[in-house]
Amino acid sequence: MSQLTGACVIAQSGGPTAVINASFYGAAKAALTSPAVTKVFGAAHGIKGVLNDVLYDIGQEDPAELEKLPYTPSSELGSCRYKLADPEKDDTDYKRILEIFRKYDVRYFFYNGGNDSMDTCDKISRYMARSGWECRVMGIPKTIDNDLVGTDHCPGFASAAKYIATSCMEVSKDARVYDTGAVTVMEIMGRHAGWLTAASALATHLGAGPDLIYLPETDFDMEDFMARVRALYEKQGSVFVAVSEGIHYADGRFVSEAVTSATDGFGHAQLGGLAVRLAEAVKKELGVKVRGIELSLLQRCGAHLASRTDIDEAMMAGRVAVEEAAAGKTGFMVAFDCTRESGYVCKPKLIPLTAVANAEKKIPLDWIGEDGCSVKQPLIDYLLPLIQGEPDRPLENGLPRFAKLKKVRAEA
Amino acid sequence: MSQLTGACVIAQSGGPTAVINASFYGAAKAALTSPAVTKVFGAAHGIKGVLNDVLYDIGQEDPAELEKLPYTPSSELGSCRYKLADPEKDDTDYKRILEIFRKYDVRYFFYNGGNDSMDTCDKISRYMARSGWECRVMGIPKTIDNDLVGTDHCPGFASAAKYIATSCMEVSKDARVYDTGAVTVMEIMGRHAGWLTAASALATHLGAGPDLIYLPETDFDMEDFMARVRALYEKQGSVFVAVSEGIHYADGRFVSEAVTSATDGFGHAQLGGLAVRLAEAVKKELGVKVRGIELSLLQRCGAHLASRTDIDEAMMAGRVAVEEAAAGKTGFMVAFDCTRESGYVCKPKLIPLTAVANAEKKIPLDWIGEDGCSVKQPLIDYLLPLIQGEPDRPLENGLPRFAKLKKVRAEA
Repeated sequence: MSQLTGACVIAQSGGPTAVINASFYGAAKAALTSPAVTKVFGAAHGIKGVLNDVLYDIGQEDPAELEKLPYTPSSELGSCRYKLADPEKDDTDYKRILEIFRKYDVRYFFYNGGNDSMDTCDKISRYMARSGWECRVMGIPKTIDNDLVGTDHCPGFASAAKYIATSCMEVSKDARVYDTGAVTVMEIMGRHAGWLTAASALATHLGAGPDLIYLPETDFDMEDFMARVRALYEKQGSVFVAVSEGIHYADGRFVSEAVTSATDGFGHAQLGGLAVRLAEAVKKELGVKVRGIELSLLQRCGAHLASRTDIDEAMMAGRVAVEEAAAGKTGFMVAFDCTRESGYVCKPKLIPLTAVANAEKKIPLDWIGEDGCSVKQPLIDYLLPLIQGEPDRPLENGLPRFAKLKKVRAEA
Repeated sequence: MSQLTGACVIAQSGGPTAVINASFYGAAKAALTSPAVTKVFGAAHGIKGVLNDVLYDIGQEDPAELEKLPYTPSSELGSCRYKLADPEKDDTDYKRILEIFRKYDVRYFFYNGGNDSMDTCDKISRYMARSGWECRVMGIPKTIDNDLVGTDHCPGFASAAKYIATSCMEVSKDARVYDTGAVTVMEIMGRHAGWLTAASALATHLGAGPDLIYLPETDFDMEDFMARVRALYEKQGSVFVAVSEGIHYADGRFVSEAVTSATDGFGHAQLGGLAVRLAEAVKKELGVKVRGIELSLLQRCGAHLASRTDIDEAMMAGRVAVEEAAAGKTGFMVAFDCTRESGYVCKPKLIPLTAVANAEKKIPLDWIGEDGCSVKQPLIDYLLPLIQGEPDRPLENGLPRFAKLKKVRAEA
């Protein structure tokens, strides 16, 4: 292992979470005290901050403000949805990244994101290796979707899950308050993986949650759905349904796809409006009072309901990335190895970026009820330890006191 | 003052709140220990529980479960939206209420609700007086809308306000995370009074909130709105707008009215879908990325973000109603008299039900910015004391532990 000393860049990418700044904090704190790291830079808006030469000198931040990062939602450095080209076809961006890395003597690059971002990370890692510029590149996982492979779960997921389960418990109470009957449909994020929607089952498990839970791992059948809602409505008056934004018919069409055809920066269809659409369909079919609720951005930025476990693990992921890079590792993502048999234990491990990039982990089919609208006990057992603990968040005037960074532009 | 001894009925009406059960708890606890009260009954689904003879014997509940009521959102007894007829035209319901009151020797009736419910309360009070059945009737205020007259504010409002302000701070962070620009529109409850939407200004006051705030107290002008959004978008990239569900054009038409024509039980138009509609209009006009977010039921059942001040005051309102009735008062609603000059002080007072029924209190126009899309400092000063303090809520497995009542049917 060679001793490598130089600056580091930390960047945040993709959709933000309640704890992505906890990983930023974990990495920054470890880097600020590492003998291998001379300067700690934060890139503005992910890899775009490198391409645009907009780096902030984190060493100049007030430590008391940095301490508030774990309780500050969203990406404090700014995020991006920018996909690097295949370097074989177009290496413009890579040359620019190398130029900036040389300019600031960047020897460590930490990219905090989901599977698209791990692809970016992997490409940069391989380009740097080929270019001869020694730079250690590590991925720090982040996604509320929990769909990264090779890790027990992803930082950011548990806090969103806790937000969803708590909100479902509260809405379940409200949605059943009248004796006149109502059907409430709640739409939860998750295009291809149903982890977030499955978290609503924690509420049901504790006695106040959705009656029916539809995940994108199985095919949605409108006729079967209506029959189940009707039967429940006739039996108990009020019905509460949780659906993933990504539920689709057997032929693959998203149930929500007619609503909007806009796409996000990665070319994915931008979903939404499903809750209202399904609720309206129920109203038309059953002639009952309905309400569609979309958790929207709230579920991914709800730092006030973050899981303490998630915050701690997110910080650990950032710290471990820095420590392992300083110790010589490159081209890896920090992952979690967990056991739940005799108490929950979560240990970090490293997996190659190539194994993570662009892959998606879905809910095992044998964790989903045969009825296609419920989850089984192993999924509850998997989820419960992740949402434990409350955040010790700083407050001011009864409201959150978020970190306020000075964001001093870096000098080479 | 005559000494009056007998059973009491507590009932909950209208849209639930995060703290309506705190008032139920305050009233029940005072009644259970009052020498004037022989039995404490809770009516299932408001006045309908009396009409249907479905009363629960609260004295048989586990005290430890009752203690959890202040942290349990929604109406634990069940609610209703049932408007009594004018007794001069149709006294069927009143005769039935009297029959039930005689059956259970009900001498105290406590109705917890908003202005429609205070009308119900007032009608029952006057009917009982005319019928010769001595029964003391008291209103306990409740509404997230904060639109009851004669009181500084209403229990339930502050917790919703705290939920809205906190969520706006978090969403404001998320909505500005990319450098590619976006317009986010958040829809907040409030048909005719903008108190809840104005609470979003607390977030702006603390540095992370909406740029533009539209209240139903002023007329909405689509052209002016678009011009402001465009100017802000060009200046800062991301724009965050908060709108009341009840914003309307100068001719009185609700901006959202084309979306749905359904009405609730009181004959009001059921609004909703405005956020998405406005966001789509912005997208069409400016060609930018947009997102519409509706806080929907979440804002009124978010007990995990309840204001401690609100919980305490809601309990006080329930307790005072019982104490004042036992002391001889009838036909009043408990109201709040508050001073903010040298520290916040909130004292209960009584106002005649007739002064409250069916009236609506709106935001004073001189608390709203001349631009029609901002609020002034007096409104911030009014709001801030109300949202102070965090709930000491019971948790189990990292999720809320709500009260579980046995709901034993009452015997006459």
